[in-house]
Amino acid sequence: MNDKQKILEVFPNPQKDRDYTIIHTSPEFTSVCPKTGQPDFAIIDLEYIPDEVCVELKSYKFYLGSYRNDGIYFEAVTNNILNDLAAVLQPRYIKITANWNPRGGISSVVIVEHTK
Amino acid sequence: MNDKQKILEVFPNPQKDRDYTIIHTSPEFTSVCPKTGQPDFAIIDLEYIPDEVCVELKSYKFYLGSYRNDGIYFEAVTNNILNDLAAVLQPRYIKITANWNPRGGISSVVIVEHTK
Amino acid sequence: MNDKQKILEVFPNPQKDRDYTIIHTSPEFTSVCPKTGQPDFAIIDLEYIPDEVCVELKSYKFYLGSYRNDGIYFEAVTNNILNDLAAVLQPRYIKITANWNPRGGISSVVIVEHTK
Amino acid sequence: MNDKQKILEVFPNPQKDRDYTIIHTSPEFTSVCPKTGQPDFAIIDLEYIPDEVCVELKSYKFYLGSYRNDGIYFEAVTNNILNDLAAVLQPRYIKITANWNPRGGISSVVIVEHTK
Amino acid sequence: MNDKQKILEVFPNPQKDRDYTIIHTSPEFTSVCPKTGQPDFAIIDLEYIPDEVCVELKSYKFYLGSYRNDGIYFEAVTNNILNDLAAVLQPRYIKITANWNPRGGISSVVIVEHTK
Amino acid sequence: MNDKQKILEVFPNPQKDRDYTIIHTSPEFTSVCPKTGQPDFAIIDLEYIPDEVCVELKSYKFYLGSYRNDGIYFEAVTNNILNDLAAVLQPRYIKITANWNPRGGISSVVIVEHTK
Amino acid sequence: MNDKQKILEVFPNPQKDRDYTIIHTSPEFTSVCPKTGQPDFAIIDLEYIPDEVCVELKSYKFYLGSYRNDGIYFEAVTNNILNDLAAVLQPRYIKITANWNPRGGISSVVIVEHTK
Amino acid sequence: MNDKQKILEVFPNPQKDRDYTIIHTSPEFTSVCPKTGQPDFAIIDLEYIPDEVCVELKSYKFYLGSYRNDGIYFEAVTNNILNDLAAVLQPRYIKITANWNPRGGISSVVIVEHTK
Amino acid sequence: MNDKQKILEVFPNPQKDRDYTIIHTSPEFTSVCPKTGQPDFAIIDLEYIPDEVCVELKSYKFYLGSYRNDGIYFEAVTNNILNDLAAVLQPRYIKITANWNPRGGISSVVIVEHTK
Amino acid sequence: MNDKQKILEVFPNPQKDRDYTIIHTSPEFTSVCPKTGQPDFAIIDLEYIPDEVCVELKSYKFYLGSYRNDGIYFEAVTNNILNDLAAVLQPRYIKITANWNPRGGISSVVIVEHTK
Repeated sequence: MNDKQKILEVFPNPQKDRDYTIIHTSPEFTSVCPKTGQPDFAIIDLEYIPDEVCVELKSYKFYLGSYRNDGIYFEAVTNNILNDLAAVLQPRYIKITANWNPRGGISSVVIVEHTK
Repeated sequence: MNDKQKILEVFPNPQKDRDYTIIHTSPEFTSVCPKTGQPDFAIIDLEYIPDEVCVELKSYKFYLGSYRNDGIYFEAVTNNILNDLAAVLQPRYIKITANWNPRGGISSVVIVEHTK
Repeated sequence: MNDKQKILEVFPNPQKDRDYTIIHTSPEFTSVCPKTGQPDFAIIDLEYIPDEVCVELKSYKFYLGSYRNDGIYFEAVTNNILNDLAAVLQPRYIKITANWNPRGGISSVVIVEHTK
Repeated sequence: MNDKQKILEVFPNPQKDRDYTIIHTSPEFTSVCPKTGQPDFAIIDLEYIPDEVCVELKSYKFYLGSYRNDGIYFEAVTNNILNDLAAVLQPRYIKITANWNPRGGISSVVIVEHTK
Repeated sequence: MNDKQKILEVFPNPQKDRDYTIIHTSPEFTSVCPKTGQPDFAIIDLEYIPDEVCVELKSYKFYLGSYRNDGIYFEAVTNNILNDLAAVLQPRYIKITANWNPRGGISSVVIVEHTK
Repeated sequence: MNDKQKILEVFPNPQKDRDYTIIHTSPEFTSVCPKTGQPDFAIIDLEYIPDEVCVELKSYKFYLGSYRNDGIYFEAVTNNILNDLAAVLQPRYIKITANWNPRGGISSVVIVEHTK
Repeated sequence: MNDKQKILEVFPNPQKDRDYTIIHTSPEFTSVCPKTGQPDFAIIDLEYIPDEVCVELKSYKFYLGSYRNDGIYFEAVTNNILNDLAAVLQPRYIKITANWNPRGGISSVVIVEHTK
Repeated sequence: MNDKQKILEVFPNPQKDRDYTIIHTSPEFTSVCPKTGQPDFAIIDLEYIPDEVCVELKSYKFYLGSYRNDGIYFEAVTNNILNDLAAVLQPRYIKITANWNPRGGISSVVIVEHTK
Repeated sequence: MNDKQKILEVFPNPQKDRDYTIIHTSPEFTSVCPKTGQPDFAIIDLEYIPDEVCVELKSYKFYLGSYRNDGIYFEAVTNNILNDLAAVLQPRYIKITANWNPRGGISSVVIVEHTK
Repeated sequence: MNDKQKILEVFPNPQKDRDYTIIHTSPEFTSVCPKTGQPDFAIIDLEYIPDEVCVELKSYKFYLGSYRNDGIYFEAVTNNILNDLAAVLQPRYIKITANWNPRGGISSVVIVEHTK
C-alpha cells in the first residue's frame, strides 16, 4: 500500500448481494503542472460498483487533497486515482472521469475505467 | 412488514396487461448524518413498472418524510427505500436514484435497481 | 368508438412506404384530481410511427382539451390517451409521455408505449 | 430531376474511402400552412453520410428558401426534403429532423431517415 | 511526414496496458473559406484512445493554429486533422468532431472517426 | 365584495411595523378565450407589501382556480386579479405580472401595479 | 392611414384609469434583405402602455406577416413598426425591440421607443 | 437574547473602516407547516453590511438548522431570521430573501430588509 | 482617416429625428497577443445611437476582420475600435464591450463608452 | 509595498483621457481555511477603472496563486486583494467580488469596492 492509498478509509458495503452504483463528484481537485509549475484544476467524477467495502467520503476528500502540491500530468493523475481506489476498494467496477479546466484555450477530459 | 412499509398505501394498477413506466421525483428528501448529527439533503427519483398495484402518491410522500430525523448513511438509505418499495409494490422493475447535496465539497449519487 | 375517440380526425399518411416518426408536444394539458377536485397539469408528448393515417393537429388539441373538467388519475389518463390514439390511428408504434406538475412536492412522469 | 432538386449543387466528397457524418442545422425554415394560409416555422436538421458527393451549403440554403411561399403540411414537407436530397446526393445514409414552432399550443417534430 | 504533422509532439502513454479515453476541446479554431476568403470558426473536439503515445497539448494547440490563414472547406479540414493525428499518434481509436459557426444562417457539424 | 373576492381569505400580517415584500408565483393559471372558446394558460406572479393582512395561500389558489372556465381577455383578467386583491388585502403596494403562453406564435405579458 | 396600418385592429382599453404595460413577443418575424434578396429573421418585442385602445392580437400577427416579402433594412423596419403602431394606438408609451438573426456572423438588435 | 440568538457566534469585522457586502446562500432550510404538519423547504439568502462583527458560518448553519422541527409560517420565519440576526450582528444593513418550494402549485418568496 | 477607418462604410440614418439604439454582436473577433504571438479571441458588442449615419454591416465585419493578424493588447484594441467607429460615425452615443476568452485561466472584459 | 504587492506588475494605461472599465474573472482561486486546514475555492472578479496603469494579466494570476497555501478567512482575503490592488494600481474605481464554493451547505459571496 503506497502513502496515498493509506489515506483512504473504507466501511462495509451495506448491500453486498446486489450490484449498485455510487458516484462521487469533486469539483475542487487541484494539482500542479510539472512543466510550468502552475496549478491545474479539475472536476473528478468517481463511479463504482462496491464489492466488500465502500470508500468513506471524508477520507476520499483528503486523498484528493493530497495532490494539491504534486507536479503531475493530466493523463497520469487520472490513471493513478483509479489505480489507488481499485487497489483499496477492490470494486466490481470503477470509472474515473477527470474534466480539466482549459489551458491554452483547450479543455481536456480523461476517462479511465476498470472491471474486476 | 416493517413500520416504514406500513406507511405506504397502494391502489390497483389500471392497466395490468401492459408494461409501462411511472417516475416520481422528490426534491425534498432529508435525513440526518449518523456521524455528525447534521442534516443531509437529496433528490430521490423512483422509477418503476407496476405489476398488480401502484403506490399512492401522498403515502409515498409520508414514507419519505419518515426519514426526517433518522440517522442513516447515503448508501444504506437508498437501498432501504428500494427494499421497502419492492416489498410493498412487488413491481416488475424498480430503480431508486438518490442525488445527495455536496458534503465537504463532494456531491454523491447512489443508484439501485431491482428486476422481478 | 367512444365519445373522446370521435373528436380525433385523421388524414392519409403522405409517405406510407417508409417508417418515420412524428412527435407532438402539448404543454397545456389539464384535468382534475378525482380525490381532491383540484386541477392537475401536465406536458403530454405523443410520439408515433404512422401507418395508413396521421392525426390532424387541431382535432388532437380538442381531444386533449376534452379532459379539462374530467376527474381522473395520472396513471389512468396516460393509458387512456394511448388507447384512444391507438384505436383511431392504428399506428405502427406509439408512445405517450406525461410529465405532471409537482403535487405535495413530488413531480411525476408516466410513460406508456404500444407496438402494432 | 424536379425543379427544387435543380437548385441543389454538389461537390466531390473529399474522403470517399471512409464513412463520416455531416450535419447542417437551419433554424430559419419557413413555409405556409395550406389550410390557414398562415406561415409555419421550423428548424431543419440534415444529417448524412456522403457517398460520391456532398451538398454545397449555399445551394442548400436556396433550396430550403424555395419553400418560403409554398403551402404544404409538416409531414409532407419533411419527407419531400429527404426525398430530394436522397435523389441528388445518393448518400450512404440520410436523416431529416424538422422541429416545428407551436401551433395551437402544440409543437411538432417529424423525423425521417433513409439508408442506401 | 507532412509539414503540419511535424508540429505535433508526443509523449509516452503512461498506462499502455489499459484502453482509456482522452478528449481535448478547442473552441478557438479558425481557418479561411477558400471561396469567399472570409474566416470560418469552429469548435474542434478530439477524442482518442492512446496506444504508444499521447499528443502534447501545447503542440496540438500550435497544430490547430497552423490552419489560421489556410483556405480549406469544412469537410476537408475535419478529415485532414483526423488523418494527421492518426498518422502521428497511431491511436487505438480516434474521432474528430468539428462544430462550425453558422454561415448563411446554417451551422454545420462534421464527425470523422477511425479505429486501428 | 364580489363573488370572487369572497374566495380570498386573509390572516394578520405578523410584522406590521416594517415594509417587506411577498411574492407568490402560480404557473398553473388557465382561463378561456372569449372569442374562440379555447383555453388560455398563464404564469401569474403576485408581488405585494402587506399592510394589515396577508393573503392565505390555499384560498388564493382557489381564487385563481375560479377563472378556469371563465371567458375573459388577457388585459381584463390581469387587471381584475389586481383589483380583487387590492380590495381584499388593502396592501401598501401590489403588482400582478401575467405571462401568457403563445397564441398564433405570439406570447404576451401584462403587468399591472397599484400603490396605496 | 397607410396600407399596413389598416391591417391593425384595436379594442377599447379595459382599464383606462391606470398606467399598465402590455408586452407581445413575436419570434417569427421575417422580411427580405433589399441588397441580397435573401430572407432575414427577427424576434420582435412590442411593449406599450395603452391609452384609449389596445391592439388586437390576431391583427397584429397579420400586420407583422405583411412584411414577409418586403425588401427593407433592419433599422428602417424597426422604426416603421413603431411608427405604424404609434399612429394607430396613440399609446402613452411604446417600445419596439428587434433581435435579428446573425448575418455574416454578426447578430443585431435595434431598439426604438416613443413617449406621448 | 432568545434561545435561537444564543446559537449565533460572531467574530470581529476585519475591515470596519469600509462598507462591504457579505452574502450567505443556504439552499437547505426546512421547517414545518403549522397547519398541516408537513415539512416546508426554502433557500435562504442572507445579505448584510457588517459593522463591528461578522456572523461565524458554522454557527449560522446551526441557527438555521434549529428551525427543522418548528411549526411556523413563511412570512413569520423570514421576519424572525432577520430580527435575530439584526439583534446579534447589529449590522449597517441586512436583507433576508426566502425562496419557498411550491405548495399547491404555488412557489413563494418573502423579502425583508433593515437598515441601521 | 486611418487605413482601418477607410474600411468602414456608412448609410444615412433612416430616422434622424429620434434617439434609438443599434447593437451589433460579433462572436468571431480574433487578434494576436503581441507578447506571445498566440491568437486571442473575443466577442465584440457595439452599441450606438446613430446621428447622421449608420455603419454598413458587411464593412463593419471586414473592419473587425482586419485585426486578424495584428499584435495588440486587450485594452488597446477595445479603445481603438471605439475611436475608429466614433471618428467615422460621429454617433450621439457609442459603447464597445469586448469579452475575451480565458488566458491563463482568467477571462477578461473591457468596456469603453463615449457620448457626443 | 508588502511581499504580495511586489508580485503585481503594471503597464501604462493606453487611454488615460477616458474612464473605462476592465474586468478580470478568475475561476481558479484557492486558499486554506485557517480553522480546519481544508482548502477553500472561489471565483474572484476584479473590476476597475484604470488611472495611470493597468495590471499585467500574468502577474495578477501569480498574485492570486500566492494565496494557495495561506490560511485566511473569506472576509479577510477579499479585503486584502482589494487593498493590494488599490495600493499598486491607484485606480479611479475598483471592486472585488469573491464567490466562495459551499461549505457546510452554504455558499458565500463577499463584495468590496473602493473609489479614489
